Amino acid sequence: METYPCKGFRAAGVAAGLKKNGHKDLGLIASTTPAVAAGVFTQNRVQAAPVMLDRERIRSGLCQAVVANSGNANCCTGEAGMQAARETARLAASALGISEDLVLVASTGVIGQPLPVDKIGGVMPSLAASLQPDGFKTFAEAIMTTDTVPKLISREGMLAGKPFTIVGAAKGAGMIAPNMATLLCFVCTDIGATADQLHACLSESVQQSFNRITVDGDTSTNDTALILASGLSGAVIRGADDQAVFQKVLSGVLIDLAKLLVKDGEGATKLVEVCVKGAASEGDARKIADTVANSNLVKTAIFGEDANWGRILAAAGRSGVALDPNRTDIFFNDVLMFSEGSGRGAAAEDEVSRILKRPEFVITVDIHDGDCRSSVWTCDFSVDYVRINADYRS
Amino acid sequence: METYPCKGFRAAGVAAGLKKNGHKDLGLIASTTPAVAAGVFTQNRVQAAPVMLDRERIRSGLCQAVVANSGNANCCTGEAGMQAARETARLAASALGISEDLVLVASTGVIGQPLPVDKIGGVMPSLAASLQPDGFKTFAEAIMTTDTVPKLISREGMLAGKPFTIVGAAKGAGMIAPNMATLLCFVCTDIGATADQLHACLSESVQQSFNRITVDGDTSTNDTALILASGLSGAVIRGADDQAVFQKVLSGVLIDLAKLLVKDGEGATKLVEVCVKGAASEGDARKIADTVANSNLVKTAIFGEDANWGRILAAAGRSGVALDPNRTDIFFNDVLMFSEGSGRGAAAEDEVSRILKRPEFVITVDIHDGDCRSSVWTCDFSVDYVRINADYRS
Repeated sequence: METYPCKGFRAAGVAAGLKKNGHKDLGLIASTTPAVAAGVFTQNRVQAAPVMLDRERIRSGLCQAVVANSGNANCCTGEAGMQAARETARLAASALGISEDLVLVASTGVIGQPLPVDKIGGVMPSLAASLQPDGFKTFAEAIMTTDTVPKLISREGMLAGKPFTIVGAAKGAGMIAPNMATLLCFVCTDIGATADQLHACLSESVQQSFNRITVDGDTSTNDTALILASGLSGAVIRGADDQAVFQKVLSGVLIDLAKLLVKDGEGATKLVEVCVKGAASEGDARKIADTVANSNLVKTAIFGEDANWGRILAAAGRSGVALDPNRTDIFFNDVLMFSEGSGRGAAAEDEVSRILKRPEFVITVDIHDGDCRSSVWTCDFSVDYVRINADYRS
Repeated sequence: METYPCKGFRAAGVAAGLKKNGHKDLGLIASTTPAVAAGVFTQNRVQAAPVMLDRERIRSGLCQAVVANSGNANCCTGEAGMQAARETARLAASALGISEDLVLVASTGVIGQPLPVDKIGGVMPSLAASLQPDGFKTFAEAIMTTDTVPKLISREGMLAGKPFTIVGAAKGAGMIAPNMATLLCFVCTDIGATADQLHACLSESVQQSFNRITVDGDTSTNDTALILASGLSGAVIRGADDQAVFQKVLSGVLIDLAKLLVKDGEGATKLVEVCVKGAASEGDARKIADTVANSNLVKTAIFGEDANWGRILAAAGRSGVALDPNRTDIFFNDVLMFSEGSGRGAAAEDEVSRILKRPEFVITVDIHDGDCRSSVWTCDFSVDYVRINADYRS
């Protein structure tokens, strides 16, 4: 998991003792100079302390360091939680010798337990000392909760003959629904851009990636996506065309991260794209795709490798969109499984059974009511999802 | 599971071979005379053939027999499915010597497979011959799918000095969401009433019962609730006061049946009432209650007997209702677990841990924003739910 060098940034991760199992749980990203920055955050009405702090600080459009911890969400922790978030930022600022207003924080883990800031303070000097240009992998490890693998993607782009780099790290696994469904995502780039340009690009890329995935239909209180731009590559976004070039590379990074999140969804064994087409509007297509992708009955059938298209149609039917089952087609990859109001029989079922054994496939629902489409990536729903979430806090 | 005698009705159930395991799978209810009848049906856009047939026939306001099968939903079966539904009704009418227009049908089970009408025809004469006034228990057994126990409730009421009886049988287990979430429910009463009165009472009682429960958030294509009134008790609904008396007894029957459905939800080990109060409108209260009651993360935590109130608050926060977490209280039974933005600490957690070990308890969310409230009954989400639904068709 090598990353392309991203000029101006260093990262690191350590074990601060926030996780009971002794794994890495505190990550730090630092920029040589104050980077231009933008962020998008959870739409949940209940917002963790670090989200409230970041929303406030990101207004400056600048950020020089990000501290992120796992093992504790610092959410529903009252005024003490806000103080803990501020103190975490202050500790990082002190270790790095920068202004504390330029430090953003993020937390993920159990809700409602006090963040032990003393533990964070204890390791902060050594964490800052261990920052490395190629330290993003250890950073990505430090933000894992029930993730089984760190998620890190880097890409190079070219703008007016000048190369630039994007590095993105994310964590996911549970509480992931298509409603600003990041959990945590941190992107560094050495392109030059304004905070407004970064915000526009980040928002659009989040729409195309994290807002198109679902694991369990729950939206976290801590969802945070941040982007920092150092400008040190020499490539600079000067107008709409440049922005489109950057946008495309950024979306590629976030879509890859989003797919990694679904693949590594809690207990997930399969990555499934639910594609709805032939809808009268993109909104209609999205509603159906979301309902199918979040249906527990569809997701358990996928886990069981059962070609139970009836559940897909039933989920589509309760989405609120007026669809005619007699004009609806359901495909697994290229195999037509349902059309003209009936299943396509044993031969199709056999073909689909083989497709369902694969780790990745596409379910397409065509309602023949228009030209609009929408896709959502989802995973199956396994016995292990329940096991993981039944005793998450113990 | 004795039922009060309900004048004019007989019922029975047999094994017709629709279920692979040889259990009872075909039930019949017959009335001595054409009964006054009303029904409410699934709001899913995809509707099974028996639902389409019943919607048409119930317009007459009369019904003399109901045939219900398990093991096959007769849904997404095209024109052949409609023919199979009509043929099932014809077979019952022939065996009973009544008009086929007065026979309603209902099916539950796997979607998309042809209903083997020949098997139904083979046992119909012996099924009709086995009808008994106390045959509702065998009827209730015949409509079970993944239910582990038959659901049957009967109550007596008194109107102007005259007693009347209501007997209700239902099946549930999965695909149960608070949106006309019956699956199948059949109610017989010997009160005298018009079809309009019956429809008004049934609709209101369904609102108070089946529309207040959730197992997995999925809405079936086959949901059907029917009520038949023979009028043979001598008690007759003559005005609004009488209707209110009947309504109350009917709601009692359906609420008891609804709770039995949730208790026996697929893989369920606990029956939990989610009560939201202090909302600005009943709609707001309902939205929050539904979101909490359907959250996989809340339901798996309940299965794990984990007092993870953070997930309850997070679910409330994404319900779309503007709530202030700092003014929100969360109780488990009478124990306050969260208030003023923070958890109430270890002592409360210990008390709640004991409550979570019980088979039934109440989660109350008070958002202190008004005087409205709403309750939903839900169950926990267990490893067995996934097991049951992963290989439902095999």
